[in-house]
Amino acid sequence: VHESELSADAVERGQYRHYMQKEIFEQPRAVADTLEARIHAHGVLPNVFGVGGDEVLATVRGLHIVACGTSYHAGLVAKYWIESHARLPVSVEVASEYRYRDVVVPPDTLFVAISQSGETADTLAALREARRRGYRGTLAVCNVPESSLVREADLKLMTRAGPEIGVASTKAFTTQLTALALLTLRLAGLNGIDADRYAALCAELMHLPRAIDDALALEPAIAELAARFVPRQHALFLGRGVHYPVALEGALKLKEISYIHAEAYPAGELKHGPLALVDESMPVVAVAPSGPLLEKLKSNLQEVRARGGELFVFADTRAGMDETPGTGALIRVDAGGDFIAPAVFTIPLQLLAYHVAVLRGTDVDQPRNLAKSVTVE
Amino acid sequence: VHESELSADAVERGQYRHYMQKEIFEQPRAVADTLEARIHAHGVLPNVFGVGGDEVLATVRGLHIVACGTSYHAGLVAKYWIESHARLPVSVEVASEYRYRDVVVPPDTLFVAISQSGETADTLAALREARRRGYRGTLAVCNVPESSLVREADLKLMTRAGPEIGVASTKAFTTQLTALALLTLRLAGLNGIDADRYAALCAELMHLPRAIDDALALEPAIAELAARFVPRQHALFLGRGVHYPVALEGALKLKEISYIHAEAYPAGELKHGPLALVDESMPVVAVAPSGPLLEKLKSNLQEVRARGGELFVFADTRAGMDETPGTGALIRVDAGGDFIAPAVFTIPLQLLAYHVAVLRGTDVDQPRNLAKSVTVE
Repeated sequence: VHESELSADAVERGQYRHYMQKEIFEQPRAVADTLEARIHAHGVLPNVFGVGGDEVLATVRGLHIVACGTSYHAGLVAKYWIESHARLPVSVEVASEYRYRDVVVPPDTLFVAISQSGETADTLAALREARRRGYRGTLAVCNVPESSLVREADLKLMTRAGPEIGVASTKAFTTQLTALALLTLRLAGLNGIDADRYAALCAELMHLPRAIDDALALEPAIAELAARFVPRQHALFLGRGVHYPVALEGALKLKEISYIHAEAYPAGELKHGPLALVDESMPVVAVAPSGPLLEKLKSNLQEVRARGGELFVFADTRAGMDETPGTGALIRVDAGGDFIAPAVFTIPLQLLAYHVAVLRGTDVDQPRNLAKSVTVE
Repeated sequence: VHESELSADAVERGQYRHYMQKEIFEQPRAVADTLEARIHAHGVLPNVFGVGGDEVLATVRGLHIVACGTSYHAGLVAKYWIESHARLPVSVEVASEYRYRDVVVPPDTLFVAISQSGETADTLAALREARRRGYRGTLAVCNVPESSLVREADLKLMTRAGPEIGVASTKAFTTQLTALALLTLRLAGLNGIDADRYAALCAELMHLPRAIDDALALEPAIAELAARFVPRQHALFLGRGVHYPVALEGALKLKEISYIHAEAYPAGELKHGPLALVDESMPVVAVAPSGPLLEKLKSNLQEVRARGGELFVFADTRAGMDETPGTGALIRVDAGGDFIAPAVFTIPLQLLAYHVAVLRGTDVDQPRNLAKSVTVE
């Protein structure tokens, strides 16, 4: 019996050494599935959030997004997206904080709960609390159709990641981003976004599976880099704007499975404290997108380099980041566009955490102290 | 010349070994000065935010608070306070993020900038950007009357901390909290808070200098504890609700001056990742207030203890936290009331960071890599 179990496991994992690695490589497909029959070249299709969903969304004047852990990071990305493209104010809060405080709910606010399992105790309790707090409606972004969260929310948008076995979430995160990008586009469409810009964002989102596939090709280069992290006890992850939550998620992955104490900061905060930690033993990982913030980030990185910190820069191929980062490495990522870039930059950071953990010999799929779904408080 | 400089320095420091220690002990006076002639038993006095300030505040329907570093943590405390007591929605953002993104400004929103020096580059740039974004008004909370921030904001509330020499901010933070508590009370008064509750909050705030004085008496006990942190490379700081920003500030102090990699989490997020880091080498510092969240926190701490983490619990004397925390220590703090508790719990965390740094032999007043005011991006 034991043997056949092992075989079943091995068959399921196929060519991959761990479920986590398999799930990282399933992301192009999982994201494509999450987009399937929900968006085409002319835009997001009607009522993908459930029957009557579009009528509710048309009246929404703001959003409160609540989640835990990795799902919280997806919510933070959505804040940048929705405020920028739909011009609606968004607040994002961890569920264990939200449920126990006196939250003020402005009129016509939509409550959004994000959870892979749909059974996360704090998120589910937050949804129940929200139903008493007078929202315009509630929306669940979730991976399990028969979950409590999906049953109890007014509107729902299922991620179609398939079963996720690795405790450290990967494809659940990128499919959540995909679902939240669909929400962003629907809200942008309802709130007067320019038609050309809307079409361009839709085209970018439809390109996401392909862009993730391209990013996965970085695996050999990243596996090589990973060795440099193995002796380390610490790491700093830096991002700016919509890439700050990407840095948070990258740091969380490294924490969860390699037990390296990684912490993320918005790069502009570096001088306000964390720079004191930077010396030769503190590698710094930076997400460097293209665009106006690149010059600012470069100046932040210069400070790190001046203090002897080893720099690992993941730079958009369009970013004009040509200098070598001293003792670290520069990894070029084709982000596929500014809108989808947070999902694309996530991939190399997942791969980095995975390969560091493998080299450190931890139990990648079952890291110590953690459970897949946190169904108790 | 060199000798006389040293003497002047020594005279200024008086009985204290470092400016930081002196400034920690100046807090009862600095907070009392910040309250002086601004509040009495019947409430906050008229127009303490500048001429015409009360008329502006009466029309405000929400707030955006922007700051960097320690001042950002003060803003996070204010969010909990203002949403709870004045029932106005508040968003708080680090200045380097705020200034570069498409922020949505709902009608009649007040912009609040917090900076000790009033010359923090990102905060000042954020204020200038805010003036173009259509706020109801702008308010500076600042320690330097002649600063650019104060000159350029519509309304101002000066903290009266006096000169702060130590790079790691202490009395600037608690006086910012004091100023923001005054703002909370004024907004609460303008938005229909119950009269008895208002009077009780005013009484609590007027008690703050005395409550801080009492907390300073913990110094010998904390100096003794500090030795346990000296060999450590990491620490986790946990809080819930309004004490989460207190944990953030405690972790930042330790980072800045002892170079221990301390990171803060809202305690409910522990199971969603950081618990993987906890083992015998990871001390965990927790702020345990009284009230309904205590039982939740106790269960979070039980998880830490079960993984061998050394626990240092700062518990409100009213908290009914009677068990000994295993291998760590329980330190009782008289918080003086739920409203002022965040300011009071800050004191032992400042003392902890200070004494750890002294024992580690770092340059307490001039930590490596950091400047007192960050006047460049």
